[in-house]
Amino acid sequence: MEKGTLAWKIAECIDTDEIKHVLNIQQDAWNHEDLEGFMKWYWNSPDLTFFSGAKENRGWQTTLDHYRATYASPGHEMGKLEFSNLRIEMLGPEAAFVRGEFHLTMPDGKTPHGLFTLVFRKFPDGWKIVHDHTSAAE
Amino acid sequence: MEKGTLAWKIAECIDTDEIKHVLNIQQDAWNHEDLEGFMKWYWNSPDLTFFSGAKENRGWQTTLDHYRATYASPGHEMGKLEFSNLRIEMLGPEAAFVRGEFHLTMPDGKTPHGLFTLVFRKFPDGWKIVHDHTSAAE
Repeated sequence: MEKGTLAWKIAECIDTDEIKHVLNIQQDAWNHEDLEGFMKWYWNSPDLTFFSGAKENRGWQTTLDHYRATYASPGHEMGKLEFSNLRIEMLGPEAAFVRGEFHLTMPDGKTPHGLFTLVFRKFPDGWKIVHDHTSAAE
Repeated sequence: MEKGTLAWKIAECIDTDEIKHVLNIQQDAWNHEDLEGFMKWYWNSPDLTFFSGAKENRGWQTTLDHYRATYASPGHEMGKLEFSNLRIEMLGPEAAFVRGEFHLTMPDGKTPHGLFTLVFRKFPDGWKIVHDHTSAAE
């Protein structure tokens, strides 16, 4: 598809909407304490990467374990998640990246927040996150 | 260009090499205290974004000012920079992202280090970083 044509612009608009929809579903899943629903938008591969601060987690299972240990194990809560300032940018017909902010409101009143960068790739079954870099305020 | 063809693979290989070269030049520039030489590989635009921990800087000039204040102003040193564990991944013919680790060795013996995600776009004058997300160990 030729860049800049009407067909190209329509495709870009549809892809951007699909990714926006993924982020909405993720936010909703989190707020219903549905970690599996949140995680299904991550590429289910040992090559998924998740950078959190200075720590790298590799693979879908490791990422799920990290989320479970931090937010969904005894003594931990998921809290209420809100994404804001989302900027979805296409990098080609099958890739995009997202810049955004996350804000958590925890039952104990704490409000962890910070920035994230997501790299998305389009697979036969839709858009998936292949890399997540998150950094929180100290 | 058709994905998976020999021509496509050659183009991908050349692009990956060019980006590797950019990162080598950046590392060298930093280690010669040449902040301008380091910065010229960032997209010179108010739309460049630089995420550092939970802080967002927007624009090339703001990013330069941030680096200057942190590493090249009175009482601050640039130290010795080393990139490691670099993974360059093409996202299309005109986009790529890089995952890697940075290690600084400062004259006072401190060793700030952490992870970064870079998003590159190919411009008529070559590959430039359009987004940098860096997070350091606390």
